[in-house]
Amino acid sequence: MKKIRLAIVGCGIAARDLHYPALKALNDKFEIVAVTSRTKKHAEEFAKLVGNPEVFDTYEELLEADYIDAVDLTLPIHLNVPFAIKAVEKGKHVICEKPISTDVESAKQLLNVSKETNKVIYIAENWRHIKKFRLIKNLLKNFKEVLYFNWRIFVGMKKDNKYAKTDWRKKPQHIGGFLSDAGVHHVAAMRLIFGDIDWVTAYTKDFSDYLSGPDFISTIVEFKNGVIGNYVASYSFNEEEQFEIYGKENTLKVLKNKIFYNEKEIDFEENMGYKEEFEDFYEVILNNKENDLGNCEEAIKDLAFFEAALKSNGNKIKVDALIN
Amino acid sequence: MKKIRLAIVGCGIAARDLHYPALKALNDKFEIVAVTSRTKKHAEEFAKLVGNPEVFDTYEELLEADYIDAVDLTLPIHLNVPFAIKAVEKGKHVICEKPISTDVESAKQLLNVSKETNKVIYIAENWRHIKKFRLIKNLLKNFKEVLYFNWRIFVGMKKDNKYAKTDWRKKPQHIGGFLSDAGVHHVAAMRLIFGDIDWVTAYTKDFSDYLSGPDFISTIVEFKNGVIGNYVASYSFNEEEQFEIYGKENTLKVLKNKIFYNEKEIDFEENMGYKEEFEDFYEVILNNKENDLGNCEEAIKDLAFFEAALKSNGNKIKVDALIN
Repeated sequence: MKKIRLAIVGCGIAARDLHYPALKALNDKFEIVAVTSRTKKHAEEFAKLVGNPEVFDTYEELLEADYIDAVDLTLPIHLNVPFAIKAVEKGKHVICEKPISTDVESAKQLLNVSKETNKVIYIAENWRHIKKFRLIKNLLKNFKEVLYFNWRIFVGMKKDNKYAKTDWRKKPQHIGGFLSDAGVHHVAAMRLIFGDIDWVTAYTKDFSDYLSGPDFISTIVEFKNGVIGNYVASYSFNEEEQFEIYGKENTLKVLKNKIFYNEKEIDFEENMGYKEEFEDFYEVILNNKENDLGNCEEAIKDLAFFEAALKSNGNKIKVDALIN
Repeated sequence: MKKIRLAIVGCGIAARDLHYPALKALNDKFEIVAVTSRTKKHAEEFAKLVGNPEVFDTYEELLEADYIDAVDLTLPIHLNVPFAIKAVEKGKHVICEKPISTDVESAKQLLNVSKETNKVIYIAENWRHIKKFRLIKNLLKNFKEVLYFNWRIFVGMKKDNKYAKTDWRKKPQHIGGFLSDAGVHHVAAMRLIFGDIDWVTAYTKDFSDYLSGPDFISTIVEFKNGVIGNYVASYSFNEEEQFEIYGKENTLKVLKNKIFYNEKEIDFEENMGYKEEFEDFYEVILNNKENDLGNCEEAIKDLAFFEAALKSNGNKIKVDALIN
């Protein structure tokens, strides 16, 4: 099987804890051939962990290496767009961690590049690959009509949480801090289940004294198909995930990672989606699969929800108005 | 013990199922001395049930009887204000079912009358007397800070529900149909627990094909003390009551009429509040108790929430702007 020769750019939490385990499991499809990081020591430590690929001092030098097919960008969010564009200019495919950019306007630059290049630009939104959400979408096909959902995701972070401690997260250049950083996952899942979003009304709060920016959001959201919902997320206080979906006669509930369809528990296989996103990236590059799950349009729609929500201050904002 | 001689005006569901059981239990404080109803047959049947008081053909004739101290108005909502004003003009105290009126503007007429009369005008909001909500308020005093709540009240009504079948509810003259009719109870409880409301953003839906007007509402609401919440009510689909309140370290949850403080169940005495509201009415009339729970200002604040919510269409509305 042909392998994609991959360079990992940025050697932080995402590279080590999220991408590397997936790539290790997919070592028939990906070979890690190079790494680089702003801090050389991090790159060298990471290189040791992943099989001693070449360590480059700078991203620019790495991009000159002709044995690299693709770069995997796991960077502070504000670097995603310029780094992805540079890679494409040097003839590399790109897989890049979500969110696509700090804001919709800058993300559109990458969208434009993606339309002109024959290289793949793949925004790694692992939640679009989580089986739980695909199962929910399928179960909802049994509803006569989906009316309303209430999804509460409360992942309170302690002061010593590894994400809360990240330098660039402490002084975020991306809109909404944690709200959009973690939140685009939730939007990806909602859009996978219910389709595109028409409008959102949202209100944010800054409850924590150590997380930067707002750490709580409550929303009312209407989808283009008329489904109405409340999506609520907190990063300062904690609770098991609670997600309830109502039809006139049916209910679907997710509680503590169990799914109940009309109160009957439904078994499913848990997955994180990282392995699946790299497999999808592979198929898009080598087997002409459509890039329907990692394209820039989808990633922009996820981010646009938060740009709308953060502008809202309790008022209704059409999401498409920010995209078009 | 001195008894209040009470006339019941309107002999429908509220009179029969809600007020009469309370009055029977308080027969040392209240004596039902007269009844009247638009449909004489209803009045005669009701009179038999409650001990054969005098049956009047019309409300106007009833108000001329000098042996009546107070009237209990259980009427279609749009009659509350004119009937209450007539009673006061004839020197009777008034207890009147919620909501105070069809809308805030008309309710203000009664408020103005209440400021000038020495008769008691008591809006019977039984939820202000429910012990569960008082217990919740007290338990929240143990929170360092109350941050957020999510309250979902889904009381799906079948086509043959006694309230859904009421003629005046089928063609409501009051704002929002069931949303405000039942909903003012919920606002009374929220205000009892969290205090006065600053603003609301709301969106309504009409899911049912047999309930008149919108039958679903989702809101974001901020209280003057900064507490933020989602209050959601449905009259077309059904679910056990779910009410969760979060602080940084504490939670309080109401599930299926059980209360859990930090996951520990707290016992409490269930009550409907009707007996307590009549006892309070008695104390206000005879023992100079302050009318803090049944006054027109409180009832207007409950209704104003819905007037704001129904105007909102996903945008933020200050509740006080409708009151002042």
